[in-house]
Amino acid sequence: MVYKQLVENIRSKRSFLCVGLDTDIGKIPPFLKKFDDPVFEFNRLITDSTARYSVAFKLNIAFYESHGAEGWKSLELTVDHIRRKHPGVFLIADAKRGDIGNTSKKYAETFFRKLDFDAVTVNPYMGIDSVLPFFDYSDKWVILLALTSNEGAEDFQLLRTGKSERLFETVLKTGSKWGSKENMMFVAAATRANMLLVVREHVPEHFLLVPGVGAQGGNLAEVYKYGRNADCGLIVNISRTIIYGDSTEKFNEVAGQKAGEIQQQMEALLKQESFL
Amino acid sequence: MVYKQLVENIRSKRSFLCVGLDTDIGKIPPFLKKFDDPVFEFNRLITDSTARYSVAFKLNIAFYESHGAEGWKSLELTVDHIRRKHPGVFLIADAKRGDIGNTSKKYAETFFRKLDFDAVTVNPYMGIDSVLPFFDYSDKWVILLALTSNEGAEDFQLLRTGKSERLFETVLKTGSKWGSKENMMFVAAATRANMLLVVREHVPEHFLLVPGVGAQGGNLAEVYKYGRNADCGLIVNISRTIIYGDSTEKFNEVAGQKAGEIQQQMEALLKQESFL
Repeated sequence: MVYKQLVENIRSKRSFLCVGLDTDIGKIPPFLKKFDDPVFEFNRLITDSTARYSVAFKLNIAFYESHGAEGWKSLELTVDHIRRKHPGVFLIADAKRGDIGNTSKKYAETFFRKLDFDAVTVNPYMGIDSVLPFFDYSDKWVILLALTSNEGAEDFQLLRTGKSERLFETVLKTGSKWGSKENMMFVAAATRANMLLVVREHVPEHFLLVPGVGAQGGNLAEVYKYGRNADCGLIVNISRTIIYGDSTEKFNEVAGQKAGEIQQQMEALLKQESFL
Repeated sequence: MVYKQLVENIRSKRSFLCVGLDTDIGKIPPFLKKFDDPVFEFNRLITDSTARYSVAFKLNIAFYESHGAEGWKSLELTVDHIRRKHPGVFLIADAKRGDIGNTSKKYAETFFRKLDFDAVTVNPYMGIDSVLPFFDYSDKWVILLALTSNEGAEDFQLLRTGKSERLFETVLKTGSKWGSKENMMFVAAATRANMLLVVREHVPEHFLLVPGVGAQGGNLAEVYKYGRNADCGLIVNISRTIIYGDSTEKFNEVAGQKAGEIQQQMEALLKQESFL
C-alpha cells in the first residue's frame, strides 16, 4: 500500500485504528474449538466484524508460530481471508525481526513474498544492513522499533547516547535516513504519550504505529494530541480490549461494537483538527 | 542442557564448533530436489557427517519460515532427527526474537516446548521483560545479542552510553544480571575479535556464541586468544564454509572433512591452554 492510499483510508473510514490479532488459543471463546482451525475461525469472524472501523490489522506472529506448522497455516489462511474480503486494509506482521543482511533478506521474503503483508516490525539493534533488505519490495514498509510500551524499554531505549539524546532518539534520527515516510514507520508507545512530542521532533512526517492504548493503559486522546501530524500520521493498535471482550457466540459482535466505539472516539479527534 | 554438560562435551569432543544450518533451498546440491523435503534431507546428511566434530548446531529460523508451514515442517523434522541421532548436541534456535512479556512468553513456548531447542537468540532492545519469560524453562538458555558481526553493528551497538562505555557493554552489564552463566550466553562477533577482551571484562564467566568466523572473515585463533575463559567459554559458529563446500552427491562428506579440519584447529588451541 502506498502512503497516499493509507491517508485516504484514514479519511474515508474516519479511523486510525489497527486491530491486533494476538490470537491465543487459550483465550478465544471455547465454542470455537469445534472448528478444524479455531484460530483462523476466530480471526475470520473478528476481522469481518471490525474491518469497517479499522484501517489496519496487525498479526502478532509469536501467537501463530507457537503452534508450529499448524500455526503458520492459520496465519496464511488469515492473510488470505483479509486480502480477499478486506482488500483496502493495511496488514502488519508484528514480528520484531532483524538479522545480518542475508538473513533479513529471508525474513523479507517470508512476510512480503510468501505472505502478502504490507509491513513488518523490525528491531533496530543490528543496524542498517538488518533493515535495508526489506526495502527491496515496492509498496512495502518497515516499522522500526523506537520506543516500546513495556517496562523494559527503560533498560536501553532511554539510555543517554549523547548530551541531550536518548537511544530511541538516535534510532529515529539514524533510522529515518534509511528509508522515507513512504516506506518507513516507527513504533512509539502510548504508555509514554508525552514522549511522542520528542518522537515528533525527530520524525515529523513519518507514520507512527502506537501500541499500548487499552490493556496496557495508554490514553487515546493524549496519543492524538502529542503524536498526530498533518496527515494524522498515527496508527493506533488495540488488541485485547477489542478481541477478548466476550467469550460467547456473540464475541464477534461485541468486538465490532468495541471497535465501533473506538472509531467514534477517533472520528471526534480527527474532526477537532479539521482533518475530516 | 546444563552448563557442566556443555563444558564436558567440549572436552570430550575436543571442539567448540557449532555448525550453522542456514539451509537455503537455492544453495543446496541440486540432486536433493528429488526428495520430498530437500531442506530436511540436506540437514539430515550434514548433521550426520558433522556431529562428531561439533558440540552444537544452530538453526537460522529465517531460512525455514521463508517457506511458511512447509518450512516449519522441515524445522521440526530436523530438530527431531538431531534429538534422536545426536542427543548430546546443544541445539540453538537463531531467531533473534524479543517482545513484550506476554509475547516473549509465546516465543519461549515455540522454541522450548513446541520445538525442543536448548537455546534461543534474543534481541536486547526491548529490555528485561522481553527476556525473563525464556527463563521459565529449566536447563534452557537465552543467548542475548551484544556485539554482532555485521557492519550495522556500528549504528547503535558501538554508541557511547556513558563516559567509557558503549551500548553493547551496557547490554552485557545489565543483561548479565537477569540470568546467570548457567542459563545465559551472549553473542559476540569474531569480526571484531579484539573487542572480545572488552566483552570479557563484563562477562568473564558466561559462554559466548561467536559468529563471523569463515565467510564473514573472523579469525579462529584470535577469537580463542581474546575470548576464551577457564571453561573455554566459547561456541564458535561456522555456517557457509562448512555446509556449502560442495554441491555434488558428496557434499556431506566434504562438510564432514571441513568440520573435521576446524575441529583439529580447535583441539590444537585447547591443548595450548592445557584445557585438554
